Amino acid sequence: RHLKFRLISIILFQDVHVMIFIGFGFLMTFLKRYGFSSVGINLLLAAFGLQWGLLMQGIWHLEGGKIKVSILKIINADFSTATVLISFGAVLGKTSPVQLLIMTILEITIFSVNEHLVVAIMKASDVGASMIIHAYGAYFGLAVARVLYRPGLRNGHENDGSVYHSDMFAMIGTIFLWMFWPSFNSAIAEPPLSYTQLTAVINTYLSLAACVLSAYAISSLVEHKGKLDMVHIQNATLAGGVAVGTCADMSIRPFGAMLIGLVAGIISTLGFKYLNPILASNLGIQDTCGVHNLHGLPGILGGLAGIVAAALGKKDGASATMQAAALGSSLGFALVGGTITGLIMKLPFWGQPPDQNCFDDSIYWEVPNEEEENEESLAHGDQSKHKADV
Amino acid sequence: RHLKFRLISIILFQDVHVMIFIGFGFLMTFLKRYGFSSVGINLLLAAFGLQWGLLMQGIWHLEGGKIKVSILKIINADFSTATVLISFGAVLGKTSPVQLLIMTILEITIFSVNEHLVVAIMKASDVGASMIIHAYGAYFGLAVARVLYRPGLRNGHENDGSVYHSDMFAMIGTIFLWMFWPSFNSAIAEPPLSYTQLTAVINTYLSLAACVLSAYAISSLVEHKGKLDMVHIQNATLAGGVAVGTCADMSIRPFGAMLIGLVAGIISTLGFKYLNPILASNLGIQDTCGVHNLHGLPGILGGLAGIVAAALGKKDGASATMQAAALGSSLGFALVGGTITGLIMKLPFWGQPPDQNCFDDSIYWEVPNEEEENEESLAHGDQSKHKADV
Amino acid sequence: RHLKFRLISIILFQDVHVMIFIGFGFLMTFLKRYGFSSVGINLLLAAFGLQWGLLMQGIWHLEGGKIKVSILKIINADFSTATVLISFGAVLGKTSPVQLLIMTILEITIFSVNEHLVVAIMKASDVGASMIIHAYGAYFGLAVARVLYRPGLRNGHENDGSVYHSDMFAMIGTIFLWMFWPSFNSAIAEPPLSYTQLTAVINTYLSLAACVLSAYAISSLVEHKGKLDMVHIQNATLAGGVAVGTCADMSIRPFGAMLIGLVAGIISTLGFKYLNPILASNLGIQDTCGVHNLHGLPGILGGLAGIVAAALGKKDGASATMQAAALGSSLGFALVGGTITGLIMKLPFWGQPPDQNCFDDSIYWEVPNEEEENEESLAHGDQSKHKADV
Repeated sequence: RHLKFRLISIILFQDVHVMIFIGFGFLMTFLKRYGFSSVGINLLLAAFGLQWGLLMQGIWHLEGGKIKVSILKIINADFSTATVLISFGAVLGKTSPVQLLIMTILEITIFSVNEHLVVAIMKASDVGASMIIHAYGAYFGLAVARVLYRPGLRNGHENDGSVYHSDMFAMIGTIFLWMFWPSFNSAIAEPPLSYTQLTAVINTYLSLAACVLSAYAISSLVEHKGKLDMVHIQNATLAGGVAVGTCADMSIRPFGAMLIGLVAGIISTLGFKYLNPILASNLGIQDTCGVHNLHGLPGILGGLAGIVAAALGKKDGASATMQAAALGSSLGFALVGGTITGLIMKLPFWGQPPDQNCFDDSIYWEVPNEEEENEESLAHGDQSKHKADV
Repeated sequence: RHLKFRLISIILFQDVHVMIFIGFGFLMTFLKRYGFSSVGINLLLAAFGLQWGLLMQGIWHLEGGKIKVSILKIINADFSTATVLISFGAVLGKTSPVQLLIMTILEITIFSVNEHLVVAIMKASDVGASMIIHAYGAYFGLAVARVLYRPGLRNGHENDGSVYHSDMFAMIGTIFLWMFWPSFNSAIAEPPLSYTQLTAVINTYLSLAACVLSAYAISSLVEHKGKLDMVHIQNATLAGGVAVGTCADMSIRPFGAMLIGLVAGIISTLGFKYLNPILASNLGIQDTCGVHNLHGLPGILGGLAGIVAAALGKKDGASATMQAAALGSSLGFALVGGTITGLIMKLPFWGQPPDQNCFDDSIYWEVPNEEEENEESLAHGDQSKHKADV
Repeated sequence: RHLKFRLISIILFQDVHVMIFIGFGFLMTFLKRYGFSSVGINLLLAAFGLQWGLLMQGIWHLEGGKIKVSILKIINADFSTATVLISFGAVLGKTSPVQLLIMTILEITIFSVNEHLVVAIMKASDVGASMIIHAYGAYFGLAVARVLYRPGLRNGHENDGSVYHSDMFAMIGTIFLWMFWPSFNSAIAEPPLSYTQLTAVINTYLSLAACVLSAYAISSLVEHKGKLDMVHIQNATLAGGVAVGTCADMSIRPFGAMLIGLVAGIISTLGFKYLNPILASNLGIQDTCGVHNLHGLPGILGGLAGIVAAALGKKDGASATMQAAALGSSLGFALVGGTITGLIMKLPFWGQPPDQNCFDDSIYWEVPNEEEENEESLAHGDQSKHKADV
């Protein structure tokens, strides 16, 4: 039993690992001049976060005064890191690495308190972590973004957008997240290798498949001349994985899973189209990646679906009250924790970039000179013709 | 036994999943202005196709009037989707999403009939699906392409080609397909976790390795000045996986597997070089990705190898006659089904793009303005120098 | 037991496979005009090398006069290929495919002798192969590079550098190597599925996480204005995986693993910054990818850590003397073998490229004409505006 558990856990751990480092990292590379930071700072925060996460959960589970490391704890460390990477999306391009490391420490610490409360005290069910990772990470990040509001970017920024190839890199992130989400939602299902765990895999797979259809349909409906918008495809196709998280291991049947996925795709796409501009202009929340639409709203949808499913008796031992308390707790810790963290990040000595240098790798990275390259490329073109003559 | 079966199945399922969504998706991104559609429409068709595939195979295997979903059925759903993605390659850049969704419905429906016939009635052996997926998908797509023939593209199209970075993205697809093909060919080997399944893994691995050598050698031989052609490397290196499919679980020994791979690499590369232009100019079959050379010819080679192997008694219970019947059935369903499907897709109200808009994302996607970007990039160059002065 | 062994082996095999083909292949795509060769020649050498590697290890382990193929042998074949891909990095851009195929034959042959000596005769411990793969591959490649020294490239080459997108492609390689390194270091741990194997996974994971922190910190310290250098991030973040290799399955505890990772990240980054230019200018070793800093120095560090750990009794049966002998043997075979191989590769009939064509795909590949593309792109921009008017 232990042996088999470890085996399946190593498989699922690798898949979650790919989601954290390739998935989140490349999903954020859509910005035209911020690819180095997206994938590079993602690696830094995740590598730091998983060590901090191991420490934090270790403190809640000391064994003989020592922290023991196991595959399951490593999966949980990757999970706690995910909250930071979600919040990173909300403030992408507008914060320094030092600010983000501070956010990592505080967000994971607060996460471990909320997780302990939800799982150990309330005994709420959240196998795919719609509430404690996705909703928490999104609203934490939005609270930070609110505190760090930049009036100077009210009218946008020339580098806050994509180019053709940067959108292609982002699709690498999207597809890997999409493919391995069933592993994310089933990685800590109990007992391992059971029908329950298998159910979590299949429900997530079906929810994601349905979500793709509604995301494409709505994107085409709301865009000019029925065209598709890459932002929707890169993000809203994943909302089904977020939203089915809490219910993934419950007996919601294929119909339930697909319904959740369909609704998530609709809400998420509409959020990107109509809600994001309102948040920015009316509430002062500049959400670079639209994490509110990919993690926030679908996370709440997941929490609500969990309350309904518990009320309908879809999982033994789950209580609708405790599910609601878990959702409220996750949102509360996120908003309060994010606001406090934002205030600390706003202190003037963390190297926050000025407005004009936002969304630009060259402030933190040695970036190859593209202009010179264009000249060289032309020179090269001549030269290669030359070679062909020889 | 059931437990272990599920375990190995989850591993193989993930690998097949990567092939479908990353492999096929990125393999088609070689076109210079069609990357959004290649990877994006691939995601749409695959997500829709696997739901339709679950339904179609469910109808053949009702349990108490209900469709039961299992890991094995999910793998089969991914498989049925592969046929559509292969055909997609033949008509890439020349069809609308609506046309392709119609093709998905019809092709998977017909696939499920042929699969039932080949597997359940004929009891033919096709573990890696050289015949029922690869040959079927390729000739189905070619029949559709024939019906949708565009005289206006007889002399090519300025966007029907690659640029440097688009070829690099395509290599992501190639390599992931190449690496995980052993999982594809062994995923439904019976009994699971047996020596038979292991044989399928190793035969495929050896065939692919041998195929790379012949593809590189022939590409260098037939090209100007011994240079390599990216089209051959992206595609013909995979022909060994296709061709060894039918025989993968038979006792063909390493020598047999490598021989099949070598021959497949030769046939495929020669097909790209010499046959594709003939198909386009003489038969009116404009095969964008050259699926005839990657899936069609190697699929037939795989079917023929299966007939020979069965005749030589390399697999208990396999009959050369039934293998031949399976190959004929797959080709017949493909050609007839593809022609009918093509005629339906040709109806004038599915939004088929005009010739001049072929191979161009901007007809279906909001595409970032690259021209403006070039200007910004220069501006940015100036600006970053500025910053360095400060 | 056998069944389970095969199972875990298939998982680990796939991960190692991804490292070899995606990891090494894309890591080398950082050069602005050498992406086709980096990922394409990597595929060719790896596919050829694994067949040659199967043959070479088969000769040491004949069973009844025959070579038997198994999953474990396939993993070992991938491993032997890794040495060639490491050496490839040292001579990247300056050698022809034929020269590299010769290097593959010789390097794997010599590797199999050294491996037999170290593992079977000396019975030294090197589970993650810091010595027999990484140090061996690096110093073999450096010896070849020394023999093939090009005075004409003393002052650099216009194409020996990266552009923005090529650095992004390289990060795909970096991240996949980083994620799956725990599988590399545990794939041949004995007995399979034991606590020992799990220890190798966790030690590698911790070493890599710590290594990221020191690589980022040192990169920022040594660069102008505290900026990060992509070369360091792409490479030095992996040094922890190399350096913990020999000790991965020993009871070095989390503290030991993280200490090794921290030191490796420091040494590797400093090597890139200060040692690489000295090697090139003073010793005539032009190390394109800096394999000395990623594989050479961390490999020696790993060997030394293994000696210390053996002396401290961290592994039953391991002897400090034999560990030292294994390190010496690996370095000796590398330097002598690399020098001889370099001399053979220097013979004038293998098509070595002239200086001005170094680091340029167009000498071996049909490369799409980028200049023409730029024109088309502008034309396209006009055209798409046109369309919008319609």
